[in-house]
Amino acid sequence: MADGDDDVPLILTWDDANSGLLEEEENGVGNYDTVNNVVIPASGATEPRAQNSLQHSWEMNYQEAAIYLQEGENNDKFFTHPRSAHALSAYLFAHNHLFYMMELLTAVLLMLLSLSEAPAVPSLRLDVYVHATLELLALVMVAFELCMKLRWLGFHTFIRHKRTMVKACVLFIQFIEAIVVLVRQTSHLRVTRALRPIFLVDCRYSGAVRRNLRQIFQSLPPFIEILLLLLFFMVIFAILGFCLFSRNAVDPYFNTLENSIVSLFVLLTTANFPDVMMPAYSKNRWSCIFFIVYLSIELYFIMNLLLAVVFDTFNGVEKMKFKSLLLHKRSAIEHAFQLLVSRQRPDGVSLKQFDGLMRFYRPRMNARDCFLTFKSLNQSGATMLSLQEFYRFYEVIGLKWKARRSGEHWFDDLPHTVFLIFKGINLLVKSKAFQYAMYLVVAINGIWILVETNMLNDGVSWTRVVPWSYIVFLTIYGIEVFLKITGLGPMLYFSSGWNLFDFSVTVFAFLGLIALAFDMEPFYFIVVLRPFQLLRLFKIKQRYRNVLDTMFELFPRMASLGLTLIIFYYSFAIVGMEFFADVVYPNCCNTSTVANAYRQINETIGNRTVLQEGYYYLNNFNNILSSFVTLFELTVVNNWYITMEGITSQTTHWSRLYFMTFYIVTMVVMTIIVAFILDAFVFRMNYSRQNREPLGDPEDEKGIVFETEVSQTEALQTLDLYKHTLRNTNLSSLQGMCAALERCGSSLVFLGRRSRTKSDLSMKMYEEEILEWYEEYSTTNLQPDETFHRSLNSPEANATDSIN
Amino acid sequence: MADGDDDVPLILTWDDANSGLLEEEENGVGNYDTVNNVVIPASGATEPRAQNSLQHSWEMNYQEAAIYLQEGENNDKFFTHPRSAHALSAYLFAHNHLFYMMELLTAVLLMLLSLSEAPAVPSLRLDVYVHATLELLALVMVAFELCMKLRWLGFHTFIRHKRTMVKACVLFIQFIEAIVVLVRQTSHLRVTRALRPIFLVDCRYSGAVRRNLRQIFQSLPPFIEILLLLLFFMVIFAILGFCLFSRNAVDPYFNTLENSIVSLFVLLTTANFPDVMMPAYSKNRWSCIFFIVYLSIELYFIMNLLLAVVFDTFNGVEKMKFKSLLLHKRSAIEHAFQLLVSRQRPDGVSLKQFDGLMRFYRPRMNARDCFLTFKSLNQSGATMLSLQEFYRFYEVIGLKWKARRSGEHWFDDLPHTVFLIFKGINLLVKSKAFQYAMYLVVAINGIWILVETNMLNDGVSWTRVVPWSYIVFLTIYGIEVFLKITGLGPMLYFSSGWNLFDFSVTVFAFLGLIALAFDMEPFYFIVVLRPFQLLRLFKIKQRYRNVLDTMFELFPRMASLGLTLIIFYYSFAIVGMEFFADVVYPNCCNTSTVANAYRQINETIGNRTVLQEGYYYLNNFNNILSSFVTLFELTVVNNWYITMEGITSQTTHWSRLYFMTFYIVTMVVMTIIVAFILDAFVFRMNYSRQNREPLGDPEDEKGIVFETEVSQTEALQTLDLYKHTLRNTNLSSLQGMCAALERCGSSLVFLGRRSRTKSDLSMKMYEEEILEWYEEYSTTNLQPDETFHRSLNSPEANATDSIN
Repeated sequence: MADGDDDVPLILTWDDANSGLLEEEENGVGNYDTVNNVVIPASGATEPRAQNSLQHSWEMNYQEAAIYLQEGENNDKFFTHPRSAHALSAYLFAHNHLFYMMELLTAVLLMLLSLSEAPAVPSLRLDVYVHATLELLALVMVAFELCMKLRWLGFHTFIRHKRTMVKACVLFIQFIEAIVVLVRQTSHLRVTRALRPIFLVDCRYSGAVRRNLRQIFQSLPPFIEILLLLLFFMVIFAILGFCLFSRNAVDPYFNTLENSIVSLFVLLTTANFPDVMMPAYSKNRWSCIFFIVYLSIELYFIMNLLLAVVFDTFNGVEKMKFKSLLLHKRSAIEHAFQLLVSRQRPDGVSLKQFDGLMRFYRPRMNARDCFLTFKSLNQSGATMLSLQEFYRFYEVIGLKWKARRSGEHWFDDLPHTVFLIFKGINLLVKSKAFQYAMYLVVAINGIWILVETNMLNDGVSWTRVVPWSYIVFLTIYGIEVFLKITGLGPMLYFSSGWNLFDFSVTVFAFLGLIALAFDMEPFYFIVVLRPFQLLRLFKIKQRYRNVLDTMFELFPRMASLGLTLIIFYYSFAIVGMEFFADVVYPNCCNTSTVANAYRQINETIGNRTVLQEGYYYLNNFNNILSSFVTLFELTVVNNWYITMEGITSQTTHWSRLYFMTFYIVTMVVMTIIVAFILDAFVFRMNYSRQNREPLGDPEDEKGIVFETEVSQTEALQTLDLYKHTLRNTNLSSLQGMCAALERCGSSLVFLGRRSRTKSDLSMKMYEEEILEWYEEYSTTNLQPDETFHRSLNSPEANATDSIN
Repeated sequence: MADGDDDVPLILTWDDANSGLLEEEENGVGNYDTVNNVVIPASGATEPRAQNSLQHSWEMNYQEAAIYLQEGENNDKFFTHPRSAHALSAYLFAHNHLFYMMELLTAVLLMLLSLSEAPAVPSLRLDVYVHATLELLALVMVAFELCMKLRWLGFHTFIRHKRTMVKACVLFIQFIEAIVVLVRQTSHLRVTRALRPIFLVDCRYSGAVRRNLRQIFQSLPPFIEILLLLLFFMVIFAILGFCLFSRNAVDPYFNTLENSIVSLFVLLTTANFPDVMMPAYSKNRWSCIFFIVYLSIELYFIMNLLLAVVFDTFNGVEKMKFKSLLLHKRSAIEHAFQLLVSRQRPDGVSLKQFDGLMRFYRPRMNARDCFLTFKSLNQSGATMLSLQEFYRFYEVIGLKWKARRSGEHWFDDLPHTVFLIFKGINLLVKSKAFQYAMYLVVAINGIWILVETNMLNDGVSWTRVVPWSYIVFLTIYGIEVFLKITGLGPMLYFSSGWNLFDFSVTVFAFLGLIALAFDMEPFYFIVVLRPFQLLRLFKIKQRYRNVLDTMFELFPRMASLGLTLIIFYYSFAIVGMEFFADVVYPNCCNTSTVANAYRQINETIGNRTVLQEGYYYLNNFNNILSSFVTLFELTVVNNWYITMEGITSQTTHWSRLYFMTFYIVTMVVMTIIVAFILDAFVFRMNYSRQNREPLGDPEDEKGIVFETEVSQTEALQTLDLYKHTLRNTNLSSLQGMCAALERCGSSLVFLGRRSRTKSDLSMKMYEEEILEWYEEYSTTNLQPDETFHRSLNSPEANATDSIN
């Protein structure tokens, strides 16, 4: 056995579990430091009778180290670290995907309930007792989850964890309300339903949404300051406008100070321009100066200032976030390292311990990958990993290992004639000529579609018959896909996102053809997607590839921002439904200034009779889906005042507050989104300028690649080690490696791959600063364990960590 | 005399003028390098008979050095440097403010002519022969200016200067057209009038506009690439939309492919949302997904991408511009330095030579300031300026010199009792309490105005009577201004921009009061400006002060961007007037989809009769002023399609091209403006973060301050020097300094001040990079004269310099 079997862990975790060993220790020569849980190494070997207990304590250490690393990965603060075996079981119960899924599903169920609660979507309406019972059930689930958390965190940490406390309060209110609804068998004014998204935000899987929310809150103070400036100018101009234009009797926009303020607020969004100017302009042409000055100051200057301020804050926040994450991970690694080293050799982690860790950290990782990961960390070639080497833990942990293929092509092992055919196809599909020919075909197809569509101006007949051009182009695409798959091999072909896109578009087009041929009405939408073939043209130019690749890279982040927006939408939709459900309908608002938009009558203009159809009654809050559409329209801003005025005319003036608040909230979120896109792209462009490498070239190596060479003797040794001392199950992967090595000869190179993340890019961008941060970090935190205890005990740390 | 009177210049300029001296030289021991105009220093003193010629050649050198420095300041490339005495006279003629003003006025006159040419502003209409004659006159002026330029540049440089060539071509066309108009006595379709702004752009004073235009052109290639992506998606979605919605008979937005494309183009600007969605949405609620996806991709992603790309390009361009300007100035200084040093002492510039230079460079600078500027450059204390010291020339040249006041306050010399009173006032107005009391008054005034305005909802009566509150507040403000002026002294008071603002607002309010009291109708607008008093509240918070100060700092640049926009407006207005003048009028467009916006009839709705007044006929191209307002409305984008559709219904479908082009052009310019504001603010915030100093604190020292101490002996020596050897006129300033020194004792400190510019901030921001640039510059340009000749001879240099 390579490593000492009777090594004693440097640190012993979870006192009660280790009590057996501790007693030994205290009777022995070691000094046990009760504050830090550290056993000061004592001279001499451990007593043999502690063997069993020792094995147990190693297992506990592995588990705690894995938990630390998990916390580092998830950016969980260490003050929520389980501190006893008691807490550990609750922690383990609450930290697995089953539990997370349950958490998520209850939260989603609670939110979806609003589809069925009055005012419900007609087809999904449920009886009061049904949805109230469902709600109660979901709330009980949430309560159960909270109890688990209480058990794991302990009461003191629990009440200091703000987010959890807020959740508990909301839960309490919802509980009471649900019971009231169930008892009264009717829904009352339940504005508190707007708080339901809190359960979703608190889910383990909603980390990205929480980060977005935090970023929004961090950008808020400077944003609000500039907003005040904006509103201030608005009020000044409103007074001015009232003084100047209120004498004009036909001007409905400035006849009272309130109207004046509302008009200028709407003008801020440009939604009522130029109509708001027209009555004044028709009286005196110079009055346009008032509006031009107002728009120049407010819209073109201060609004951009808002963006600048948010962008600037955002920039800073992104960097600080990256810094704190990096240092948090580093600290997690240090914690884990301390738990993995033995008293005999306190500055290194052996493969045995590493494997022990991985059994908890990645239970499904096989022995071969674990060994390869260890080897890729172990750059010095010694038998132990030093702390410096262990720091790179997170960089290598996600790698997917594969032996480097000896041959280039998938068809290398085929008979010679067949090989030559495939080789020919391979050369063909890789040639520039083939590529450009395909671009040409796509371009012709594009022009064809345009011309064809332009010629059928009735827009109905074309779906009934399969046009021959469709078949021709589809055949060409089909042949291309077939050639590429055979030439490159399915593995290589599908590893490129662009090929996947080609493939799926072609398959969809084929399905569309079938739909056309068999006249299946519901699948026509597939035929309609045909023009997306043209997207392939954008592969030609590097910049477009970059843009589209960045688009896909940004997608997860964009999705989380979208989800954040939806959470705001949800809250506003609930409030809107509670107050404005069923207030607008055709011809409802004939007394308001926006009557036309709601009017639906036969009207005589001159001497003709026309059905004047104002559709705006469709923009209502009658159920949650309609509310979402209405809120999206308000987000797009154009003509939003029509919806506002329509509803205001049916309710009270105070309704405007709802719409204005919504506008400001979406302005914040939208500004953040713009700042985010700006930041992401400028970052990428800076990155590719600095490193002078074309980012995201689809044909090139993509992502991070590690190489590790394994010799035959090494492999056999490892297999031996595993067979004798470590877990005996599931060694097939190692045996497979040994067999492969025997076939190949002396050694094999394994490649570990993972995709490149924003964090990798940041690492490269801030290279120099990172070293500074590390230095600063290591001087302030000489003892990693101290930080741990400090963060555990200081209330400030908890306060700042509360929205994780 | 301190410096050798018979020093010979190291370089002799303008061969023909120096021929006398050169002959001497060539007969003598020096070797004249005809290529570089450099006289290689020869041993021995100059011959006495060359004295006169020597004096003349120094004068020529001073002048050329001044021209070089001027070129460095104005960023004129050196290949336009006058190269003979012949060219010099033309150069001097074309480079003074009189000539510049003439240039500007002719250009402005040409542009203003469109006010009077058909279709003219009614009140400014002129007969054809009058405005055609005026135009011819202006064009003759322009031709004259071009001739002067030809004389100065020489034919070869002239035809290689692209901007000038374009100007010449446009001039030629305009000439012919003006004559044709004069002969036919009627205006034809003169779209070429849209080119008139070229004359304005070419003016010396329009440097900022030229820079903006260049920046726009530089940002264009990446912009266009993303724009293509945008339009591509638009077309794909248009085909999709046509396929999906054309079956809906009541949907006018997607019934043909052309309408579909136009609808989606307008939707890109959100101007027709949600109307464009409504017919489809009312048929099938899920159709909103099409619009949400379209807007998310196009509006929220690709449009922001556009901004990101422009912002990124802009950032890079700003830095490169700063770099090239800096190096250009440095090179200009080197050229000037070479011309100012003598053959005897080739590494220093003496006061005598410096004074000679200043007589040409700043003719109106007095001897004292010249001496002080020299001293502030001369940090080593030697009698000569080294090249290193001379490099800082541009930093000190704008300084305003003033002796540091011995006392603190303006009232120090008054009798003791009076002094105490003033001292008390001084302390009072400087106290925090006084300031906050004033803020409180302003705040109360603000609330008062709001309440008062809110209460008079008829909006007419209030102008007839002077409200007592108005008098009370005005009295308080008046007392404040009075106290501040007396307490701080007028000089100190008016040196702060905020005080100036307070003062002018108070004076205006006072004028308003008089207008009210004497019931002078036309001055009511002053009363209306009262709310601007409230702006003073924003002094309270540092961030607002920063924002407002930045606003003022950015103002020149914003104005130049505005001017650039106006130039685009002008061109589009001319084209619009030529094609769309008088095509819209009330009830013109009853056949179009936007008929309502133009309808002006008595209409029966239900059983009431209402005057439906559509004002959009006012948004026309009937004269240049209306065109500008219309174009501003198109810039604001909201409801722009109404104007487009109205005019399209009266003309042809191709009119849409005009409006779409205009939209894209303004989008470019607006994106640049947004990028500029973003960049300026982010830069400022970064700057103040890096330097940890609050920028633009109005009470603190503002701008750049240099200190120079002058001793009495030094002053007398300088006076002596001036009296004996240099210009004998206008020594009063020096004598005054000597007198002041005698009064004060041994020495006096003089302070030179100037306001801080963006260039100063950039200098500090890029400190490290600047050193790199200098190094790079000095290694590539070992011989400054070589660069000069290289840039003179290489056609590439000229090509890149062409748009200056």
